[in-house]
Amino acid sequence: MEEIIENTLLYDFYGELLTDHQKRIYEDVVFQDLSLTEVAEQEGISRQGVHDMIRRCEKALRGYEEKLGLVHKFQETRELVAEIHRLAGECRRTGDTEILRQIEQISEQIEAL
Amino acid sequence: MEEIIENTLLYDFYGELLTDHQKRIYEDVVFQDLSLTEVAEQEGISRQGVHDMIRRCEKALRGYEEKLGLVHKFQETRELVAEIHRLAGECRRTGDTEILRQIEQISEQIEAL
Repeated sequence: MEEIIENTLLYDFYGELLTDHQKRIYEDVVFQDLSLTEVAEQEGISRQGVHDMIRRCEKALRGYEEKLGLVHKFQETRELVAEIHRLAGECRRTGDTEILRQIEQISEQIEAL
Repeated sequence: MEEIIENTLLYDFYGELLTDHQKRIYEDVVFQDLSLTEVAEQEGISRQGVHDMIRRCEKALRGYEEKLGLVHKFQETRELVAEIHRLAGECRRTGDTEILRQIEQISEQIEAL
């Protein structure tokens, strides 16, 4: 996965486990694309301090995913649902109702995740 | 939701964020249904200590859900997938292909969660 998408997903899932201070700095650098120097001035800490904080946040977010794996689980669900979506459209266009068995099977697969 | 189901789900999602010690005690009391006294003897701590530990674990697990809401999100997904599952079966039995639009709509709804 591209790093920016990965970071967004991880932050989306686990960001609330960071402190407010961490969240603010992380968002400014990673999502608002402010420079380390800008954020350092704004927060009254060193540039290196901002850099270290970002690394610590990334490490924490990755650590949560390693332990819980919920981003992965959601991604998997979403891909399967996209497949159901596609199949339902195909079934509607082609009238091939055999596809419905596939939809049922994929549903079962998701329910078992 | 029944408390035992809620506890199981919360533990299932966030249990890995507890320490090994907490996990062991929590599992023994909540899932193995051992008495506080039994676990206290086994762990060499007081009965009150076991009791407090369980409360702390429950509080931590609930705290994670309050912050992240991932159990809720998954429950919601699962209910919608169950509905797709049911509709696909109905469509296959009745031949009413209008149902396919509903399946597509629900898929979109899940994808937007």
